[in-house]
Amino acid sequence: MAKVVRNVRRTDDVIVRGLGEIGVATVHEAQGRKGLLGSHLRPIFRPAKIAGNALTCEVAPGDNWMIHVALEEARQGDILVVTPTSPCDDGYFGDLLATSAAARGIRGLVIDAGVRDIATLTEMGFPVWSKSVSAQGTVKETLADVQVPIVCAGCLVRPGDVIVADDDGVCVVPAENAAEVLEKARRRERIEEEKRQRYAAGELSLDVNAMRPKLLEEGLVYVG
Amino acid sequence: MAKVVRNVRRTDDVIVRGLGEIGVATVHEAQGRKGLLGSHLRPIFRPAKIAGNALTCEVAPGDNWMIHVALEEARQGDILVVTPTSPCDDGYFGDLLATSAAARGIRGLVIDAGVRDIATLTEMGFPVWSKSVSAQGTVKETLADVQVPIVCAGCLVRPGDVIVADDDGVCVVPAENAAEVLEKARRRERIEEEKRQRYAAGELSLDVNAMRPKLLEEGLVYVG
Amino acid sequence: MAKVVRNVRRTDDVIVRGLGEIGVATVHEAQGRKGLLGSHLRPIFRPAKIAGNALTCEVAPGDNWMIHVALEEARQGDILVVTPTSPCDDGYFGDLLATSAAARGIRGLVIDAGVRDIATLTEMGFPVWSKSVSAQGTVKETLADVQVPIVCAGCLVRPGDVIVADDDGVCVVPAENAAEVLEKARRRERIEEEKRQRYAAGELSLDVNAMRPKLLEEGLVYVG
Amino acid sequence: MAKVVRNVRRTDDVIVRGLGEIGVATVHEAQGRKGLLGSHLRPIFRPAKIAGNALTCEVAPGDNWMIHVALEEARQGDILVVTPTSPCDDGYFGDLLATSAAARGIRGLVIDAGVRDIATLTEMGFPVWSKSVSAQGTVKETLADVQVPIVCAGCLVRPGDVIVADDDGVCVVPAENAAEVLEKARRRERIEEEKRQRYAAGELSLDVNAMRPKLLEEGLVYVG
Amino acid sequence: MAKVVRNVRRTDDVIVRGLGEIGVATVHEAQGRKGLLGSHLRPIFRPAKIAGNALTCEVAPGDNWMIHVALEEARQGDILVVTPTSPCDDGYFGDLLATSAAARGIRGLVIDAGVRDIATLTEMGFPVWSKSVSAQGTVKETLADVQVPIVCAGCLVRPGDVIVADDDGVCVVPAENAAEVLEKARRRERIEEEKRQRYAAGELSLDVNAMRPKLLEEGLVYVG
Amino acid sequence: MAKVVRNVRRTDDVIVRGLGEIGVATVHEAQGRKGLLGSHLRPIFRPAKIAGNALTCEVAPGDNWMIHVALEEARQGDILVVTPTSPCDDGYFGDLLATSAAARGIRGLVIDAGVRDIATLTEMGFPVWSKSVSAQGTVKETLADVQVPIVCAGCLVRPGDVIVADDDGVCVVPAENAAEVLEKARRRERIEEEKRQRYAAGELSLDVNAMRPKLLEEGLVYVG
Repeated sequence: MAKVVRNVRRTDDVIVRGLGEIGVATVHEAQGRKGLLGSHLRPIFRPAKIAGNALTCEVAPGDNWMIHVALEEARQGDILVVTPTSPCDDGYFGDLLATSAAARGIRGLVIDAGVRDIATLTEMGFPVWSKSVSAQGTVKETLADVQVPIVCAGCLVRPGDVIVADDDGVCVVPAENAAEVLEKARRRERIEEEKRQRYAAGELSLDVNAMRPKLLEEGLVYVG
Repeated sequence: MAKVVRNVRRTDDVIVRGLGEIGVATVHEAQGRKGLLGSHLRPIFRPAKIAGNALTCEVAPGDNWMIHVALEEARQGDILVVTPTSPCDDGYFGDLLATSAAARGIRGLVIDAGVRDIATLTEMGFPVWSKSVSAQGTVKETLADVQVPIVCAGCLVRPGDVIVADDDGVCVVPAENAAEVLEKARRRERIEEEKRQRYAAGELSLDVNAMRPKLLEEGLVYVG
Repeated sequence: MAKVVRNVRRTDDVIVRGLGEIGVATVHEAQGRKGLLGSHLRPIFRPAKIAGNALTCEVAPGDNWMIHVALEEARQGDILVVTPTSPCDDGYFGDLLATSAAARGIRGLVIDAGVRDIATLTEMGFPVWSKSVSAQGTVKETLADVQVPIVCAGCLVRPGDVIVADDDGVCVVPAENAAEVLEKARRRERIEEEKRQRYAAGELSLDVNAMRPKLLEEGLVYVG
Repeated sequence: MAKVVRNVRRTDDVIVRGLGEIGVATVHEAQGRKGLLGSHLRPIFRPAKIAGNALTCEVAPGDNWMIHVALEEARQGDILVVTPTSPCDDGYFGDLLATSAAARGIRGLVIDAGVRDIATLTEMGFPVWSKSVSAQGTVKETLADVQVPIVCAGCLVRPGDVIVADDDGVCVVPAENAAEVLEKARRRERIEEEKRQRYAAGELSLDVNAMRPKLLEEGLVYVG
Repeated sequence: MAKVVRNVRRTDDVIVRGLGEIGVATVHEAQGRKGLLGSHLRPIFRPAKIAGNALTCEVAPGDNWMIHVALEEARQGDILVVTPTSPCDDGYFGDLLATSAAARGIRGLVIDAGVRDIATLTEMGFPVWSKSVSAQGTVKETLADVQVPIVCAGCLVRPGDVIVADDDGVCVVPAENAAEVLEKARRRERIEEEKRQRYAAGELSLDVNAMRPKLLEEGLVYVG
Repeated sequence: MAKVVRNVRRTDDVIVRGLGEIGVATVHEAQGRKGLLGSHLRPIFRPAKIAGNALTCEVAPGDNWMIHVALEEARQGDILVVTPTSPCDDGYFGDLLATSAAARGIRGLVIDAGVRDIATLTEMGFPVWSKSVSAQGTVKETLADVQVPIVCAGCLVRPGDVIVADDDGVCVVPAENAAEVLEKARRRERIEEEKRQRYAAGELSLDVNAMRPKLLEEGLVYVG
């Protein structure tokens, strides 16, 4: 009894793009170091940096049928997030599906499984974060759910949550927190920019962050 | 009692090159989704796309002696396929062997073990698909077989079979099937090209492939 | 009772740079095939090729406090070598620390754990060899030792030992052997250059290295 | 801003025990093949078979402070479910914590990280499903949440959900479905028992499950 | 176009049992250190020691349909050897199939994938060597071949070849070599028994095997 | 130019046995959470608990020649510690070598590679901690060092250091610290015993260890 949930509310694209510009590491810090998908998800080309609304899709092992179903649900600015119901490295997604996904406004793919045709995907500039690359194709036999909350690479992703992805990996921001996280992330960026300039000028982080007293208190000793 | 089998029959290079142009994913589908080597074999640089006749070579763990022996057996258009007799990540092959291999007409290397000097191999444009990169060299102490059927990365490869390798991985096509697989793969390519154009125009694969009735029959439900 | 050892003696930079030009594979062979760090350490961009004095740093899992401490100990030409006290994939090091490290004269980072901000590190041209890429940040709570002998990626590294790193991986040369290893490595390079020319001209390594008698003696048989 | 949620509602122990008697494989099937934690979680001794209410606990990498906090929240019949905020293999839990957990009525531990003192835990008969065994201890420095929804080994677990664990692995049943899943699982068991007797008597599953027509339809051929 | 090959010739059970008594390590040595399946295949209980004729079976990822088909082909003394067409850890085989397999005379299972119900399989004494244990069940949708040559865990296995499996792993002996390998293995056992007695009496293998001259020749030095 | 270092000083067996009785987890804590070998080393049978003087031995990949050499160096109470010069899973050690090792007074084996004949080793009660089990045998071609400092499973081990191994893993105690570590470990055991009794009586570790103030200070909040 698989289902497709329609009319999922998306997060405002101004916020989404704002998060995308900032990137994964800072967004992840800004939301309290939560929401990071497993670091085994790697981009097929670099640099790559996108953000979008999660369009979630479960698939059976070795079976990409539901990706075909999910594409119909796409809206401009979505990122397709795919998770297999048991671990699988097969190539679920290739240049044909990428052509269709791009035509439907999808900005990229996050998949805890494999992809193929990566030379073409790279030429197309269609960004993908995947667990593996494999030419092993899939069948179309088994149903699963589309646009329901899923766990992808160890992280809960709900339809309409914001996905931020870059060379460092993939992070999810719950839709209801997106505006606040963006604000915090921007503040964080400003602080980091200040530090960067001081570090570039040769100042030490021990001084910039006033770490020396606590190091002493914890018992650090200098010898030699 | 190791042996080298000489005078192995090669597959016609017109067919070989035809398969190489098409690439791994489509060739693999065209031969009934068989013959794919394990996806842990990755190219040392991208893009890379070759096809050739398998020149097979077994090696002992940490010992590349038989690669030296295999090079003498090379013919123009061969791809060297190397498998260790027990799992090993050492760097069996570097720029010296690549220089010799290229001089003997070998188009590239597929090895279920490690390689080294990859900066130089990249500059040379000598393509390699390997399990690992490792500067760990090898000894020359133990014999093994050359130009016999081997299992490489989970797949049976016989001397003279066609190896197709690109950014997606490595596939083997049995010599006796090569012509037929090429024909099927070309047909497949034509069908895919048609689909690509329809997808690019915004049509859905659900419609292009007439999937809706079977989805309904299997019980897919749309909600929300 | 963690400690920082100061005033560690460095190896002469003429020797260090000499080893760096030669590269990992040849240096590793020249010192008797010892001192190679685990091949799971991979560069975040390629090509990359550096050598420097080891500035060693232990860190707790998920805690990069001691890297901040280590940066104060840096001298021009050092390479920061970081090892966690138990296995960890977190992103210990990003663009802020890289900015500081570069300003303090550090040539690169070798870490048996994760890094982040790799797009920026790549733009900066700050080379890193790491076990993983992860946006997962770290805390600053737990002390560990700086500039003491450590085991990094399966290899003993002492402060002031020479680190050589390139696309093939990372190698450590004990300070006391560095001059001798450089000499042997250069001799090796000359021999390899001669062989390379003979191989390029089509000569076989079986002949160049006079391997045929031993192959025969071990019992290799040619058939077919 | 870490938090502990108190007064979490538990699932009725009659249902919990019912699910525990049936075991993971059948419960997992009965709830539509969902809710299985990653198969890298293995029992430290066999046989082991328990069920209980999830007492959820997040921990920082290399830091078991929150397990101490979680023990206070235990009720008779709970199973402690621990997940690190980034991957870690350290030994978070040993015989002292097991003594305390057992005294507080906890039936066992599920942890996507390491445990230690497993000889003693085995003697005590305190069952544990873990990712690793490691004597590496942990610090007590960093807060995290207790009794909030967590993702453990790729699966969403909410406080008060039912955990079923045996030699095959670990499964979570959402509290609101527990009664219905138990009923379905019992029905499934009865059907399986009938099949088992027919199989033991030599009947083939092809006949018991009437598979022959579909095999024929799909095109299976018998040769030789 | 999947097929089942019938009437496969089996190897004489006297030879099969002889190989089984000797065990994997010695049989593997006796046939020239070939034929060992990957060491990731581990027994679900120990000790376990069997030998039998290979009944080979391919399966799709997450799909055990063909195991049902294979059971009809079983003869007394077979060992079922299962390989997925792409890597998969799902639990393909549980107590129901084991009941049927045992009733049809199958001695055990070798599978480069997962199994479940291992508590029951252990009670039944039905031996299994698998890559993983997983409660994740499978579907019955996709055909594959039965009783054809397959690659299982990196090794070619043909129907009717002899499978030897014990606590050390799994080895295949080609049917045509089985008698000769048995003879060599027995000879080897006798030699090993003699050595065992000399070692137990305190003699050194350096002397028993006359290794000292070659060690000296290779340049081994004693210091201290 | 491989060498064997003779007349290595051993640590007093009274201290060694004392450390062995206490076990790995407590010894590891007592020496400041250092010296733990990688948790991928697992015992071939459980329970197992030994301590002894390290008899160190390097081996080439797939080559156990130096183990034969090392056995001559054994003294009553040694533990053989073997590390390959590059990663290898082969079965370096089986029942013949175990028979010899036991006859020479060796208490067990720690090896960052594979072993075989584990059914016999289990019957003999000869304890082994290894990375893998594999029937794959080895050759005797390449020299390496015996009784020199080695890195085994990520940890420096010097001849005559104390090895402590049990179900939790393997720990090394530098010879010069052994007496002091034993004293600290015993003190630790007494403290742990007190805690164990209080925990068994239902007291919480939050109270026994007075953790509540620091939790409050760090900002832990109780809700619900």
